[in-house]
Amino acid sequence: MDDQLARLNRLPLRDDLRGQHPYGAPQLDVPIQLNVNENTHGVPEEVQEAIVDAVRSVASGLNRYPDREFTQLRTALAEYLGHGLVPEQLWAANGSNEVLQQILQAFGGPGRSALGFPPTYSMYPLLAAGTGTAYLKGVRADDFELTAGSAARQVRDLAPNVVFLCSPNNPTGTALGLDVVEAVYEAGEASQAVVIVDEAYAEFAHADTESALALLPGRTRLVVTRTMSKAFALAGARLGYLAAAPEVVDALRLVRLPYHLSAITQATALAALRHRESLMAEVEEIKHQRDRIVKELERMGLEPASSDSNFVFFSGLEDPQRIWKGLLDAGVIVRDVGIPGSLRVTAGTAYETTAFLTRLEELLAAEGRLPVA
Amino acid sequence: MDDQLARLNRLPLRDDLRGQHPYGAPQLDVPIQLNVNENTHGVPEEVQEAIVDAVRSVASGLNRYPDREFTQLRTALAEYLGHGLVPEQLWAANGSNEVLQQILQAFGGPGRSALGFPPTYSMYPLLAAGTGTAYLKGVRADDFELTAGSAARQVRDLAPNVVFLCSPNNPTGTALGLDVVEAVYEAGEASQAVVIVDEAYAEFAHADTESALALLPGRTRLVVTRTMSKAFALAGARLGYLAAAPEVVDALRLVRLPYHLSAITQATALAALRHRESLMAEVEEIKHQRDRIVKELERMGLEPASSDSNFVFFSGLEDPQRIWKGLLDAGVIVRDVGIPGSLRVTAGTAYETTAFLTRLEELLAAEGRLPVA
Repeated sequence: MDDQLARLNRLPLRDDLRGQHPYGAPQLDVPIQLNVNENTHGVPEEVQEAIVDAVRSVASGLNRYPDREFTQLRTALAEYLGHGLVPEQLWAANGSNEVLQQILQAFGGPGRSALGFPPTYSMYPLLAAGTGTAYLKGVRADDFELTAGSAARQVRDLAPNVVFLCSPNNPTGTALGLDVVEAVYEAGEASQAVVIVDEAYAEFAHADTESALALLPGRTRLVVTRTMSKAFALAGARLGYLAAAPEVVDALRLVRLPYHLSAITQATALAALRHRESLMAEVEEIKHQRDRIVKELERMGLEPASSDSNFVFFSGLEDPQRIWKGLLDAGVIVRDVGIPGSLRVTAGTAYETTAFLTRLEELLAAEGRLPVA
Repeated sequence: MDDQLARLNRLPLRDDLRGQHPYGAPQLDVPIQLNVNENTHGVPEEVQEAIVDAVRSVASGLNRYPDREFTQLRTALAEYLGHGLVPEQLWAANGSNEVLQQILQAFGGPGRSALGFPPTYSMYPLLAAGTGTAYLKGVRADDFELTAGSAARQVRDLAPNVVFLCSPNNPTGTALGLDVVEAVYEAGEASQAVVIVDEAYAEFAHADTESALALLPGRTRLVVTRTMSKAFALAGARLGYLAAAPEVVDALRLVRLPYHLSAITQATALAALRHRESLMAEVEEIKHQRDRIVKELERMGLEPASSDSNFVFFSGLEDPQRIWKGLLDAGVIVRDVGIPGSLRVTAGTAYETTAFLTRLEELLAAEGRLPVA
């Protein structure tokens, strides 16, 4: 490894990349994978078949470049999101990471800044670094809450060019009230901040949690990003998208690589959108498991955060690394996001969730914190 | 349109993007498309079936993130390229544009420069702009040739951080001798230039044209990029790749977006690589049509450039725009690359090539340049 690093350092690498390590959660071969917030309920057979059929229908034309404007897909995404959106307001790329990168290329970059509120999605600072955008770290309350007043004040003080609001937030799972988005947007008027609400997990929200899509009319600097990696069970197919004012989409055309979205990716996403009923039924089951985890963790004396996502962040652990290791020994991998006393777990199937909860309770009991279950 | 531009200009867009227009050849619905150097011979049925089968085999696992290291694909690409390459030397992304963008993110960027030799691939300056890299325009001889002496002198004088050598060159179609690559690499020692040889069209080269892959041993700043868009008839599937020293690949891991290559893209590329025999048979037929075009254009008194690619660049036209329009009226679209007196045409099927040649001859005859065929 040292030898490899030495060779890398002899290359004419950019100075700001020297000493950095590539992003990445470990990709371990563990039976129960609850560490990267994938959809644990799998791709319904009906959706798998629709995807295969869709790929078959485009296979003979793969020698041609794909539709650079992916018009059919944008139309389907607009229809799915509702809120009176039209295709001209939709844009997509290979995962929401690429969508976010394009937004930073257009509105961030050298001499500009982006504000995030850690703990939040760990890719924001990496995307900022990759586009030469300064990354500013905002602050949250001790319980990780972010109020409208606090967020707006920080935006006014720091005058960023881009603001990341992750809602529901990763890794804590909690959604922001729309009052926070409204206040941040208004506070960003002075610095003309582009406000991104990252709603990767929106479909898992409780019924009374509102999407920032409702705020789009009249707010040209507001961008709502989504993904098909989570609710649509397509992390492997890489399809992120956004809704915004049509001129924001025009701006992204200036920085996107031509033909960035393959004909197969377009066909796959369309197939899943057409068969979303079975996917949304799974979402309901995942929400049920998520709520079950919250309830059980509370019963065990832990402190789960309120979750609008397909995962639960919980605190109150004496030695999270030991619990993490104990779970792994039992074939269950969860995520240590580096916050003291805490871990994050993705809602699994009923079987997987039971395995996680049972093993966790055993580990807590072994610490003398609980009677043996 | 003006209204749209005005709205775009009111956004907090980066200054260097203001007034720019998005890249893009027109995507017109024309029966005979010879304008963007696609593989006109289509995806062989056997390959289509293999792709559908491959997608079926990964469909049930699409809820999981793809292999971030795409190890199987890199192994297959190394095996395909030969030259003693190992998987650690291979890297891939969504089209060679993304591969080139990642190279610029790692080795170019603000305060750094990239040198190209126009006329060449029109994306180089756009990729430089998108990554904040200064783009330097080298010069070629009047006949678009680039000698080792001239190229090396320009590299020494301009001291770029990155050099683009497109071979075979787009839009002229001509390959560079390896002496040019060697001389540029050596001249780039002082500025530690990363030398990219873009071999997107390498499979169409004449038998005696050598690939720069042969130069990789001992040259850690040399990168050879390829694509499956052309010879592999997969422009719609978006798979570009490169071969270089393993530490170059390590550097790209620092800038790539995690999971940038979907499981479906990986499976599709693998399927095509496994069934390359039928694709390579098509390549031979395309080369035959390409050589036929060169011969016929010479017979018509035009000046086709020597071509190692699947297209022919030809000069000697009095009014290329009129010829372009005349061809389009007959349902044949070719490319006006903006070089006076010239057009570029992709080698079509036998039928398409005949249609192009016949119509062109009619148009030249109408100009009084040729007897009516």
